[in-house]
Amino acid sequence: MHNILVMGAGRSAISLIDYLIENAERESWRITVADANREAAESLVSGRGDVKIVEVDATSKDARRTEIESADLVISMLPAFLHIEVAKDCLDLKKNLITPSYISEEMKEMAAQVESAELTFMNELGVDPGIDHMSAMRLLNQTRDAGNEITCFESFTGGLVAPESDNNPWNYKFTWNPRNVVLAGQGGAVKFKHNGRFKYIPYQRLFRRTEIIEIPEYGRFEGYANRDSLKYRELYDLMEVPTIYRGTLRRTGFCRAWNVFVQMGMTDDSYLMEGSENMTHREFTNSFLAFNPDDSVELKLMHYMKLDQDSEITDKLKWLGIFDNTPIGLNKPSTPAQILQKILEKKWTLSDGDKDMIVMWHKLKYRASAESEEKEIHSSMVVIGDAQPRTAMAKTVGLPVGIAAKLLLNGTITRKGVYAPMYKDIYEPVLNELENYDIKFDEREINAKEKTIA
Amino acid sequence: MHNILVMGAGRSAISLIDYLIENAERESWRITVADANREAAESLVSGRGDVKIVEVDATSKDARRTEIESADLVISMLPAFLHIEVAKDCLDLKKNLITPSYISEEMKEMAAQVESAELTFMNELGVDPGIDHMSAMRLLNQTRDAGNEITCFESFTGGLVAPESDNNPWNYKFTWNPRNVVLAGQGGAVKFKHNGRFKYIPYQRLFRRTEIIEIPEYGRFEGYANRDSLKYRELYDLMEVPTIYRGTLRRTGFCRAWNVFVQMGMTDDSYLMEGSENMTHREFTNSFLAFNPDDSVELKLMHYMKLDQDSEITDKLKWLGIFDNTPIGLNKPSTPAQILQKILEKKWTLSDGDKDMIVMWHKLKYRASAESEEKEIHSSMVVIGDAQPRTAMAKTVGLPVGIAAKLLLNGTITRKGVYAPMYKDIYEPVLNELENYDIKFDEREINAKEKTIA
Repeated sequence: MHNILVMGAGRSAISLIDYLIENAERESWRITVADANREAAESLVSGRGDVKIVEVDATSKDARRTEIESADLVISMLPAFLHIEVAKDCLDLKKNLITPSYISEEMKEMAAQVESAELTFMNELGVDPGIDHMSAMRLLNQTRDAGNEITCFESFTGGLVAPESDNNPWNYKFTWNPRNVVLAGQGGAVKFKHNGRFKYIPYQRLFRRTEIIEIPEYGRFEGYANRDSLKYRELYDLMEVPTIYRGTLRRTGFCRAWNVFVQMGMTDDSYLMEGSENMTHREFTNSFLAFNPDDSVELKLMHYMKLDQDSEITDKLKWLGIFDNTPIGLNKPSTPAQILQKILEKKWTLSDGDKDMIVMWHKLKYRASAESEEKEIHSSMVVIGDAQPRTAMAKTVGLPVGIAAKLLLNGTITRKGVYAPMYKDIYEPVLNELENYDIKFDEREINAKEKTIA
Repeated sequence: MHNILVMGAGRSAISLIDYLIENAERESWRITVADANREAAESLVSGRGDVKIVEVDATSKDARRTEIESADLVISMLPAFLHIEVAKDCLDLKKNLITPSYISEEMKEMAAQVESAELTFMNELGVDPGIDHMSAMRLLNQTRDAGNEITCFESFTGGLVAPESDNNPWNYKFTWNPRNVVLAGQGGAVKFKHNGRFKYIPYQRLFRRTEIIEIPEYGRFEGYANRDSLKYRELYDLMEVPTIYRGTLRRTGFCRAWNVFVQMGMTDDSYLMEGSENMTHREFTNSFLAFNPDDSVELKLMHYMKLDQDSEITDKLKWLGIFDNTPIGLNKPSTPAQILQKILEKKWTLSDGDKDMIVMWHKLKYRASAESEEKEIHSSMVVIGDAQPRTAMAKTVGLPVGIAAKLLLNGTITRKGVYAPMYKDIYEPVLNELENYDIKFDEREINAKEKTIA
């Protein structure tokens, strides 16, 4: 018997727990789910299988260690900043660890100790980071192993609303952390490389430098650039690649409209607005427009942002209610970004029956030799969620974690140390099993004569 | 006899030293100028009067204290971050101190000690901060003392090239610290109040929200907002004022063109550009534009920024040489802001015979009572520099400092503590004496029927 301890029963844990329960008997697992909120854990497990539920405050070292001591494998689904505490306990107590999150600097510093203790700390096993890495490395390595030189790699991921639940003019609803959506692109210029040249996009232009991407059967999307594509040169072993670009997907038209919030200053998270606890949506919007008692807020905004009265952007803004005399409903002075998020949540929250969608798209160009023709491959994945809480996001985060847990416990994965799934012995079996859950890539070579869409 | 120690013989010290020499005999002063660079100090003094020059490394506590010990009054013209060190010495050694710079948090914390030691540490005695405060407080207090209620206060200052030396399409040359010009407006949203409403402008819109200002005899200027006007409510005792706004002056057309650099991302100081030590102006510009080997950098920029080929903005950009195949000439990887500054310095540096100009403009509105008509006053100051190094900037920074020194030593100023010249017993005599040097304000009431220009 193997004891698996899942720490954290947040909304990304459901598909992981489904997977563990489904495989428990065959694999001889005993599953323990630990959360500070017993009811949350119980509702995820909902009486299935022989799952033990324990109430544990993950910020308490003693409480954590008591549970970790009796586990063979720890899976941390806690908020990312807590992984490092769990990792220290796991190193002390000689337990293997899996997390879906980015390897932090502190985690990286533990690498030598973890390796010499012959332990495995696998990270970045969700969707982004996670499936993006695994599918990219498979595609890149296949191409390299066949003796080709890679000339371009682009990769985009987006969490969106599924087509069947897409009923608003933005073609968007929050399917994950709304705060990250509001702050997207802030904190430094975008850096990437195109045909050998370093290129930079400041925040104020980010949502106007989009790329149109068409995904078979799912139609058109647009991608805006992620902050630092350059660091992926090292991660993906593409130091000399002339073009590297990573981005985020939205439905077309989203970014032009979102750009209005950026230009107005509504996404700023750096200061509190005086009196915002008593503001209406309309007053919030008016705070970013020049004073003029004779003009409407609508007209001032349209003029400031050069929007036509009948434009799709104007429609989108009106639909969101940013001109409404509705109280915002925050009870203390807040930043523009916090207020905007609050307004957006009133309209962009998934309804009960709504489904989400995860879309991923890679573009790869390569040559067999310097003289040969450049070839192009597009590889795309679309995952539609089941009824909430079994969303596409929960599935694509939870399943790779669950599969990696199985592969580690059954001895398929033997690699030691602190790492992300960049290696064939990891990504190959994980991606293969993901196909059983309809998480798979559509890979097609693009006719060289045909103009590339993106 | 009084011993005056001037620490720092940088370019702002010349007019101060002129003033001190001019008044030394009548006032019985002995003047010492201390600088790390003896030659710099000698060139400012150039053999005049009985001025002692000492070579002092102001970062060395011992060296500083030796000189401060034998002084009656210390004037720090050092870089602003060094004032606090001099201030600590002055407190220890019981010496009075004058600086032209903003009161730092650390300096503020010394206030009680300075006051109980019966010392005077006067700050913010240059032009901005300095003359702006003094002239604002005089105007505000005159109006308030006559029983009026102030309804609006706006204040703008700019360091520009004098009309007789204005020979480029930007109507601008660097007359002070170029780095501050390149970074202007960064570091947080602009905050001000207009007719009782809080208003905010993000960096990406700052140079498109200008106000046109006309100054008698000098023509049209435009002002963009300074970062935080709200804090001046407290400083100027205007907590309840419905409109408060402070800004920076440029000649009209400057801001629209400068906005291109902001939008392109060329003013970003947060990252180093890979390979920028070998870049040309043209390559730098191209780094912010999408890759396309078939289009010129010029066309890509005009299209990206929606500029007509024959627009004044396009002219200004071309004149600066941002499309030239000229090496930038920085010998290590630099930030976009550092590179832009380097390019601008090639064109915007004052030539030998060039003169600079300081322009200040206040707008005040008030009512005698809630029922009475609102009145409006405009008050403006224009100072044209003499031949370099006796620039308008040097005069407007150095003379108020010199005059304050005289008033302190001759007993006219008796106020103790750490303060800026917000008090009538300070600003009145300083402003009066400044008029002898043609540093004076043109104050006129605007006809209420006449439409205000700004």
